Parts: sequence; C-alpha cells; structure tokens
Amino acid sequence: MPPIALPGHATGRPLPDLDAPLPDPPERRVGVALVGLGAYALGQIAPNLSQARHARLAAVVSGNAGKARAVAEAYGVADHVYSYDTFERIADDETVDVVYVLLPNALHREWTERAFAAGKHVLSEKPMAPTVADCEAMIAAGEAADKRLMIAYRAQFDPYNCRAIDLVRAGAIGEIQTVVADHGRILDLSATRDQWRARRDLAGGGSLYDIGIYSVNGARYLTGEEPTEVTAQVLARSGRPEVTVEEGIAWQMVFPSGARALCSSSYLMAESKRIHVQGTDGELTLDPATDYYVRNLTVTTGETTREVTIPNPNQFAAMLDEMALAVREGRAPATPGAEGLRDVRILEAILEAAETGRAVAL
Amino acid sequence: MPPIALPGHATGRPLPDLDAPLPDPPERRVGVALVGLGAYALGQIAPNLSQARHARLAAVVSGNAGKARAVAEAYGVADHVYSYDTFERIADDETVDVVYVLLPNALHREWTERAFAAGKHVLSEKPMAPTVADCEAMIAAGEAADKRLMIAYRAQFDPYNCRAIDLVRAGAIGEIQTVVADHGRILDLSATRDQWRARRDLAGGGSLYDIGIYSVNGARYLTGEEPTEVTAQVLARSGRPEVTVEEGIAWQMVFPSGARALCSSSYLMAESKRIHVQGTDGELTLDPATDYYVRNLTVTTGETTREVTIPNPNQFAAMLDEMALAVREGRAPATPGAEGLRDVRILEAILEAAETGRAVAL
Amino acid sequence: MPPIALPGHATGRPLPDLDAPLPDPPERRVGVALVGLGAYALGQIAPNLSQARHARLAAVVSGNAGKARAVAEAYGVADHVYSYDTFERIADDETVDVVYVLLPNALHREWTERAFAAGKHVLSEKPMAPTVADCEAMIAAGEAADKRLMIAYRAQFDPYNCRAIDLVRAGAIGEIQTVVADHGRILDLSATRDQWRARRDLAGGGSLYDIGIYSVNGARYLTGEEPTEVTAQVLARSGRPEVTVEEGIAWQMVFPSGARALCSSSYLMAESKRIHVQGTDGELTLDPATDYYVRNLTVTTGETTREVTIPNPNQFAAMLDEMALAVREGRAPATPGAEGLRDVRILEAILEAAETGRAVAL
Amino acid sequence: MPPIALPGHATGRPLPDLDAPLPDPPERRVGVALVGLGAYALGQIAPNLSQARHARLAAVVSGNAGKARAVAEAYGVADHVYSYDTFERIADDETVDVVYVLLPNALHREWTERAFAAGKHVLSEKPMAPTVADCEAMIAAGEAADKRLMIAYRAQFDPYNCRAIDLVRAGAIGEIQTVVADHGRILDLSATRDQWRARRDLAGGGSLYDIGIYSVNGARYLTGEEPTEVTAQVLARSGRPEVTVEEGIAWQMVFPSGARALCSSSYLMAESKRIHVQGTDGELTLDPATDYYVRNLTVTTGETTREVTIPNPNQFAAMLDEMALAVREGRAPATPGAEGLRDVRILEAILEAAETGRAVAL
Repeated sequence: MPPIALPGHATGRPLPDLDAPLPDPPERRVGVALVGLGAYALGQIAPNLSQARHARLAAVVSGNAGKARAVAEAYGVADHVYSYDTFERIADDETVDVVYVLLPNALHREWTERAFAAGKHVLSEKPMAPTVADCEAMIAAGEAADKRLMIAYRAQFDPYNCRAIDLVRAGAIGEIQTVVADHGRILDLSATRDQWRARRDLAGGGSLYDIGIYSVNGARYLTGEEPTEVTAQVLARSGRPEVTVEEGIAWQMVFPSGARALCSSSYLMAESKRIHVQGTDGELTLDPATDYYVRNLTVTTGETTREVTIPNPNQFAAMLDEMALAVREGRAPATPGAEGLRDVRILEAILEAAETGRAVAL
Repeated sequence: MPPIALPGHATGRPLPDLDAPLPDPPERRVGVALVGLGAYALGQIAPNLSQARHARLAAVVSGNAGKARAVAEAYGVADHVYSYDTFERIADDETVDVVYVLLPNALHREWTERAFAAGKHVLSEKPMAPTVADCEAMIAAGEAADKRLMIAYRAQFDPYNCRAIDLVRAGAIGEIQTVVADHGRILDLSATRDQWRARRDLAGGGSLYDIGIYSVNGARYLTGEEPTEVTAQVLARSGRPEVTVEEGIAWQMVFPSGARALCSSSYLMAESKRIHVQGTDGELTLDPATDYYVRNLTVTTGETTREVTIPNPNQFAAMLDEMALAVREGRAPATPGAEGLRDVRILEAILEAAETGRAVAL
Repeated sequence: MPPIALPGHATGRPLPDLDAPLPDPPERRVGVALVGLGAYALGQIAPNLSQARHARLAAVVSGNAGKARAVAEAYGVADHVYSYDTFERIADDETVDVVYVLLPNALHREWTERAFAAGKHVLSEKPMAPTVADCEAMIAAGEAADKRLMIAYRAQFDPYNCRAIDLVRAGAIGEIQTVVADHGRILDLSATRDQWRARRDLAGGGSLYDIGIYSVNGARYLTGEEPTEVTAQVLARSGRPEVTVEEGIAWQMVFPSGARALCSSSYLMAESKRIHVQGTDGELTLDPATDYYVRNLTVTTGETTREVTIPNPNQFAAMLDEMALAVREGRAPATPGAEGLRDVRILEAILEAAETGRAVAL
Repeated sequence: MPPIALPGHATGRPLPDLDAPLPDPPERRVGVALVGLGAYALGQIAPNLSQARHARLAAVVSGNAGKARAVAEAYGVADHVYSYDTFERIADDETVDVVYVLLPNALHREWTERAFAAGKHVLSEKPMAPTVADCEAMIAAGEAADKRLMIAYRAQFDPYNCRAIDLVRAGAIGEIQTVVADHGRILDLSATRDQWRARRDLAGGGSLYDIGIYSVNGARYLTGEEPTEVTAQVLARSGRPEVTVEEGIAWQMVFPSGARALCSSSYLMAESKRIHVQGTDGELTLDPATDYYVRNLTVTTGETTREVTIPNPNQFAAMLDEMALAVREGRAPATPGAEGLRDVRILEAILEAAETGRAVAL
C-alpha cells in the first residue's frame, strides 16, 4: 500500500505554484490602443500583448480602414477602431487607458501630444523623437495632462539584459573597462517598413537612431552611468540618393568612472546585435543582445565560460506590464520620458561629433 | 527632394507581411476546455493558448471550485466553469468544441469517453493511457462518437524537432545508424505534480511513461520507422516505498532499416532531454530536445558544426492549432489516437523486456 | 623618471616561471623505441614525443627498411633502426629503455614478450590483447623480467578527462546515475590502417575493441568503480564479407553504486566520441572526449552551463612522460597491465552477452 | 577465409599518408638561435620549435649564464651558449642560420643589426621596433647584408586565421563593412615579463604596441587592404606612476573599399582577444583570435552559425618553418620587414591621432 494517499479519480488540488501569477481578468487589464499598424505593431506587439498579465489590446488606430478592421476583428476589439482623423474620439473610449505610438519617429511628438490631449497615458516607441526639443515638449505635455509617459525600451525589461545588469553590478567581471556594442542590419528600400527610415525628416537620424540607440541605452544601463563626452566617425555610405540619413556611424562615449563605450551601427551589414562588457576580472557578452526572441548571455572569467539560459523570456509582455502597473499605481514608469530624452541628447551629440570631427561634451 | 515619396504625417499602409497571419477572430476560434488545472495546464497550456491563432480557452473543469473560478476569471471565461461532477453539462456549452484532458494518465480513458459522450472532440495528454486496452477503447469511443481524438505530442509540432526531421530526411547526415535519446529528471515526492506519478495505478508506468515516451516517439519520428524488437534493463532505484513505478530504465529498439535507438529515462537525475541522431555522414543533436522553451539543434559533418536558430518557436500553440484545424476541417489530426496507441504498445513491450531480461518482438 | 629600474640594454633575467619545467636534457630522457610505423605511430606518437619532457624517440622497428630509415633519419636516430627479424639486437642498444608496441592487437603479446626478453620495459597500445589469457601472459612476462608494463590509455593522461574526473569526484554533478558513452567511425577497408581491424584474428574484436574500449575505460575512470554485470546487443552489420569482427554493438554496465553505463560503438557511422555523465545534480559532457587534439568539456547545473578551456593539452606527451617516470623511479605506471586486463575481461563479457542475449556477471 | 590477405605477424607496410610530411633530419633543419630567454621564448618558442619540420633550436643567447646553460642543456645545445657580450662569436657557429630576437621592442633594432653583422638571417618579434626610423634601418641592414628579415607575426601562420582569410576572400560573408577587434590583458608590474612593457623607452608604446598590433595587423590581413586614415581616443589610465606608456586606446581605421576597423587595446582588463568581421551577408568571428593555443572560428549567415574546428594547429611551428624555408630558398619571407614597418607606421599615426584628437592620414 503506497504511503501517498491519492484518490483514483479526478479531484481538485490547490492552485499550483506558477512561474508567473495568473493574469488579471481581461476587463481589469489596462487597455492599450495601438497607433500605427506596421510590421512591428502587428508582428510583435499585438501577439505579445496576449501574454501580458496586466495589459490588453483595447483599440487600434490606423489610416487604412480595411487593415484596421481586420486587425481589430482578429483581436476581438472590432468596436474600437479609429482612423487618424477620428482619433480624438478615443477620449470617450473608456476601454483605452494607454496610447502606444508606433509611428515613424518624427510623428511621436504629435501623437503623444494628441493622446495626452485625449486624456490617455502614452507609451512611445524609441527613439523618443528626432530632437531634444521634441522630447522636452512631450514631457511637458505629459506633465500638463498629469498622465504617464513611457518610452518603449524593451531591452530594459528583457530578462537576459536584466540578468546581465545584475551580474555586472554584483562584480562578476570586476570594474567595467569597456562596453563594445555593435548593431547592424540591411536597410531595404524595397520594404515598406524601411522606407521612412531612409528619410531624415521622418526618422530623425539613420542607423544610429534606429538601432545604434540600443548601444547607447545598453552602455548606460550596463555601466549605470551617464556619458560625459562623445567622439564619432561616419562609416561607409551606399550612395543611394533616397537615403538622407547616415547609414553607418562609429562612436565612443566616456563615462565618469573611466569606462568607455565603443559602438557602431550600420544599415549596410548583415544583422548584428552584440553588446560586450569587458571588466578587470572577466567579460560578459550578450550576442544577440537585443533580438526580439533570441538572446545569448555568456560570462567568461579565467578558463571558464558560463552560459546562462532563461526559459521563455518575454520582454514585450514585461514592458507592457510595467506601463500597465505604472498607470494603475499612478507612478512614473521605469523608462519615463526623461530616459528617452537622455538618449536623444546623446544621439544629437554623436551626430555633431561625427560632422565636426571633434569631441562633444555632454 | 528625396526620391521616396512619403507623407510627413501618419498614413495608412497596407497590411505588412507577417511571419504568421492574423489570428482568427476570438469568436471563430475553436473553443478548448481544460480538464485538470495543474501546473502544466496553468503554467504552459493556458498562457500559450493565447498565442494560438485558431484555438482559444473556452472553459475550465476542476474539482477545486475556488481555483476553477480564479482561473476562469483570469482568462475571461468566468461563465464557463465546470466541476468534475457537473462536467456533463458541458454538452450544452456551444463555446466548447474540444476537451483537453490534462489529468493523471490513468484517468485519460474515463475523461476521453465522458467528453465524447458529451459530444466534444478530445485532445489527451501523453502517454495516451496506461494500457493498450485503454487506448483501443478511447479510439473506439471517438469513432463511435464520430469525433476527433488527438494525443498531445507537442514535440511533433515543435519547429526545432520538425527542422531536425527535415534535415534527416534530406540526407544531411546520411543513413541513420543510431538514435541515442536520454531523458531524466528528479521525481520530487514533496511536489503535488509528482505524487501521482509515483503510483503505477495512476501513472501506468514511471519515468518511461512520463519522459521516456519522448525518446520512443522521437526515435520513431526521426527514423520514420516502427521498431520491431526491444530489449531493456532496469536502472537504479531510490528505495522510496512510495514509488511503485520503475524510476529508471534503459532500452534499445531495433528498426527495419537496421537503425537502433539506445534510450534511457530516469527519475533520479538532473534534468536531461537529449536526442542525438548518428548517421553514416554526420550527426544531429537536439539538446535539449523536448524542453518547453529551450531547444538547441546542431548538425556536425566533418570539421564543421552548424547551429540552427529558430526565433520564437511555440510548440504549444502549434499543437493546439493543429487540433483546431482538424476539428474545423473534419479530418484526423496529425497525431491521432493510433499514434498514441503505437507508443503505449512499445512502452508495454519495454517493461516486459526489462522484467524478463529477454528481447520482446513488436 | 620611472620607478621601475630597468637597463636600456639586454640583460639577464632569472629563469621565468613556466607552465611546465624545462625538459630533461635529451641524453637523460628515457629512450623509446617504436615497434610498428603506421599512421598512428608516425602521425601522432613520433611528433608528440618531441613535446615530452622525460622521454625521447630512441629507435624504430619496422619490417619496411626504407620507411624505417626515412623515419629514423627524420628524427635523428639513423643508427637505431631495427627490423622485425633483427629486433633482438635492441637488447644491446643502451639508448633504448622502453619498447612501445604499436602493432595490431593480436601481436601485442608476442612483441611484449620479445621486448621483455630483450631486457626492455614495455608500453603497449590498447586494447592490451585479444584475450584475457594473452593479457595474463604479458603481465607474467613483465614480472618475470622485473620490467614495467604500461598500457597506452592516453585519455587517462588527457588534461580534459582528468579535469572531468576531478569535477565528478568533487561532487559537481552529485551522485552519478548514468554514463552515456558512444564512439563511432567509418571502418574504411581501402585504408591500410583499417584492414587488419576488419579481421577478428588480428584485432580480437571489432569496433568494441578499437573504440568501444574508450567507453569502457571512461566509464570506469569516471565512476571510479568496476562493473559487475553487462548486457549487450549487436547493432547493424554492413554485410561486407571481409569484415569478420562485430561492426557495431551497444552494451550496458552495472556498477556497485547503482550507476549504469549505456554505451555503443560502431564502425558504420561518422566520427563520434562522446562521454556524458549524468548525476543527481547536473550533467558533465566530454564531446569529443577522446579525440587526439579536440576536446570540449561542459558542466550543466540548473540554468547554467560552464565550458572549461584548457590551453595546449598534450595527452600523448603526458602519457609518455608517465612511462618515463615509472621507469626512472622503478614503480608501476598509472595504467599498468592489470588495467588493460580489466578492460579486456569486460570486452569478452560484452561479446558473450551480445551473443547469448543474456546478462553476464563479472 | 577473409578476402583481405594479411599476414599473422608484423610486416612492413609502406609509409602511411600523414597530415604533415616527416620532418627534415635534424642536421638539415635551419638552426635558430634565441636571443632573450624570457617567458615567451622558453614557454612557447623553444617547446614549439620541437614541432617544426624545417627549423630547430641551435643556440641560446642570454645575459644570465646559469639560465642560458640550463636551457641549452635541456634542448641539447649545451655547446652553443652565448652571452650578450660574446654574441658576435655566433658568426663562427655554423649550426646557427637564423637569429630570433626576443628582447624588449627597443632592442630589436640593435640586435637585428648585430645579427646581420654576424652574417645571420633575422626573425624579430613584433612590434618590429618603436619607430618607423628604426624599422627602416633594420630593413636597410638586412639588404646590405643580403640576409632575410622576417617579423614574427605568428597569427598570419595560424590555421584558424588563415581559414578566416580564405572564407572572407571567398565571399562567405559578402563585402566587409567593419572589422571590430579588441585586445586586452592586465599589465602586471610585479611580473618580470611585464615591467619593461610599462616603459615607453623600452616598449615604444603601451597596450597598442603590445597587443593592439594584433588588431592592426588582423584588420589588414582580413580586409587585404591598407588603411588610409586613423582616429583614436585614449582610454582610462590606472594612474600608476611606473607606467609611462598608454594603457588603453581605442582607434578607428578607414580602408579604401570603405570598410572600417574599430579597435581597442587595454592593459587594464581581463584577457580579451577578439576579431570580428561584419559583412553585408553575414559575420565571422575569431574569439579568441590570437591566443597561443585556443582559437574559435564561427561564421553566421541568416539563422545558421557554423563553427569550424581545425585539429592540432601550431602557429609557432608554421611561422618558424616559413622562416626556415625562406632562408633555404633564398627568398623573402611571407612577413618581411616591410610588413612590420607598415604596422609601426600605423601605430605612430594612432598615437598621434589620440594625442591631437584629429584624424591622421596615412
């Protein structure tokens, strides 16, 4: 007779321990309206919103009525469709708490201001806006409306990047000497998603603003410091007349501790997303660091390399849940407008350094 | 004037190309009722159902009313809660198309039969049931009810395992000589989820039925053949009196081509989930092969090892979508009851071979 | 003025710390005669002897006079060439301390006995000999001559395998549950080096004796135990009439602690050399484990995999130095004849188990 | 009766195919005298000379008579010991063909000139010398003496780096966009081997001259181009007064094709030796790239990463054999003085760029 007394039929055990608690009931989750239904919004954000525990898709906003309807139906919000012209009616949509701006960079400011004017909180894609002035206006608009403003720095909510930060802070590789961070991808002018990125008036900048920002932000959160000076060099150009942004750039950032970040970004190379931290006692590598779904984290000290595996990390859901909790708790989100502003200030300095060939103080 | 004509304001682009099409509208998705709300149902199935495109969570069935209510509310199906006693009322719940049986192995048959009796299709966890006789009864019940019966072999829907099959079939490693497949984990009697697994009357078998089945099934789908003979050896035992199943077993399977599978499973070792295929020209390794979220696939030929990375694979959603499409299209699912029966017949033969010390023909 | 006082010209610093001490002067190193100048002797042993610190190449013995002369000249021992007929004259060659028998397995006994008769110590390749009786005769011959007999188990001197042993003994993966060890390669009858391996009268056995022995020996040194029982199964055959040995075999070994070794070897598959140790707390993998030059060692516990890198390991030189020191110190070498005998006894039991289909006690 | 006719006794097979031909007889190998018996000379060069096929250790030169004698005895050249004062007598030593200068950088010129004056060929460590003027004088001295001058760029003879070059040239990753190359190690003032490296008068430069040169040279041989412009930034300093060289530096190099090298070197970080090539179609990584014994080479294109394994590579022996063949064949070696001069010219430009904060044309 086995000592474990179990019935021979289905019973009702207590709620098991779960890696993540049950999600909030759908009607209690913070409602998010997506403004802009491009490849990122539909390929990554909408599907991963289904994995959030505190947020849910509540409405869609697009200039393409057919697309908007199809998306809204697919996600069960057919009655919450807005066009760019009718957007202001969203003020009356009580299912919408947050407006997530997924439009080209140059439009972040306008839509953030319109969303605040409609009484909603705002989550804006990175880079926050093309200029420091834009960023400051967005922050001011949020303060005036007394609403939350968050910049969608998904990597800061990624379990792999968070683990890397923890390891560095815990001294796993000693004092940081350099952060070497390189991001590249091919800008494909035949693809809709890339066309606006080729235009400085819409994108603010080129590869630096699009993917180089991961290196800027990453160097900041890994060192825990703010850079005081930058130098920069323009990399090769393709000569494509359609491209009015810089396509590749290398830059260096000086941090108060003496640590340096050595970075590059490019629109002319195969996909590359690496952040490496070199310390006095060892090295830590995220490669890829900022991919949507694949990250590898290794730490090398002496003859030993440790590889860390984190099952089922979802940086998108974690980011959206942070926005939801900030709204619900009436507090600033972890990556507020001020965080976005800091990066845009650095991006401007990098472009200036590249153009002048001189170091620019921050 | 840049050659790419783009407006300086938000517009409405066509629906972008997506890796996966938009999901079906929620009300059109095939409704799934979960029977049994344990760690696997709540930790893996319920959250990943949110990622399915053709299926959705429609109801829950549990003997624990409080837990059932909490789960149903969390997933927005508060009006679709059933107890084990009131289960038959599910026949009238038009939102439920499929009953997914997530109870201990020995209960799969009873609940499959009750679900068919209630007019629903059935998805049953693996192993299908403790005995060949149970399996045959389940298949007969489905045929009598003219409903679909699928066994939840998630690995067969995993993009990594599917890629491995494709590579092997394409001759990437030549003719298969051996499949070496080992699965292990610590059976923890202090954990609710493991207690029933210690009892042969509830589990049917031990580590072999729980995780060794991955090696049996994997060797079959990787070779594309059915084994004709097995030998087996019992491994070490812990001596825990509560455990009435075999805790570890090694076995060998002969395939018509001459290929052999060399397998083991154990409840007394740290987690291990490896399937290796050795061919005349190279080797292919899935390690882990059958984890929920982490898989590594490498192919070695000569001096070169290739590592394949598949972003964002979701075997759970793919499996649930297959069930949904089979229901919708009125066809047999890819892993029908007959597939489950084949494995249980092999499991019985392996236990017999271990007990008798003799080869058992299939 | 820099505080480090250094002259601006070449000076004479003390001997620096070195990873390995300086070698013994050539004339003091133990002289080794190679008997048999095949691919292994000339491709691996002769070049690596140059890296030994206590041993050196002193003479060559071959039935091919031209080859012997060329090799002897290349290594600076032109005056120390012997044929198989004139071998006994080596008794008078004071530069030769050790005879290293690199001939087909069936000849190990004869040449070991002849070498002892000539007053030399003996290093014999593995497997020690085709039969237990041969091994016992070789040990007796060494004892009668009061000379050392060592079996060339290079893996036991390999820094990677030694590190693995240390890690296992230190409890890095808990209690050993299984050792899974698989060795394969294609036996190529068109290659001189493989032809004798196809004949049971010359090789003693097939893939089991040639490469499976690494799994037998590895399971023993990793567990630190002697097996008490074996079961075995013959694998596929090629049907080549020239091959009178078993081409593939799987076997299982029971150890007193309850640990099991699950092994295979094959002459019909691409090169494979893996030894895996599964414990209660983690797993350790050597893959390849027994390659001449490439080894990878990883240890996985929980979510972390550690990869150990050992620079410039040379198992050949370490093995030859052990023989040299055993000779110089008048002590038994680390892998004496008794070690070779233990494996051959197990090999015989495995073949018997495969033939009878029954477990064989040891 | 097996079809393979083989005798049952030892016979004499033809010379087997070997990965490398037999070495030249010792007396025919090119004799090398080591000038300077530090950690590198004794830890790496002397032992690996034993693996060369065309070169051999012939003599040693040191200011420490006891050490020189011990080393010479260990390698069997007890009668070929020279002090720095008696060096010129080496002119009469017919066993010495090549003088290998392993002294601090500032002494390379003097000893190269003395060796040429003694009628020997010269192999000099890298960097060739502290200044362009020194390099030009060394080249002139060699031409005047009609002797060979080679710079010991071992990485150019390393099978891994050679394979990387081949892959890049074959278009495996498309057009090169960037080479990211970082080298670091801790300069340890308590270690004899590092003390002279802290002094600019002896070392010429700091981490740049010591290890950064690998990045300079690597970027050149991987792109197959010569840089036209450099920018540079000084990295953190330790503040140790003994250190009169730069401890860390970052620099960027522009190549005619538009490719850029983004490099750093540091004496304040854990060991790092990575060279990465980013192309339009993929990326290639050597990490470590320039270790004595460990190299990893991976090529990533799309979802696939290929890892290349080369068994038993010996860059030291390959380099020494190239010098030997150049001497024997009366031709320029693959890395002549002109190659060393090119790098030193770049090193000077990098230091100038760092000091001035301006781009320096080459």
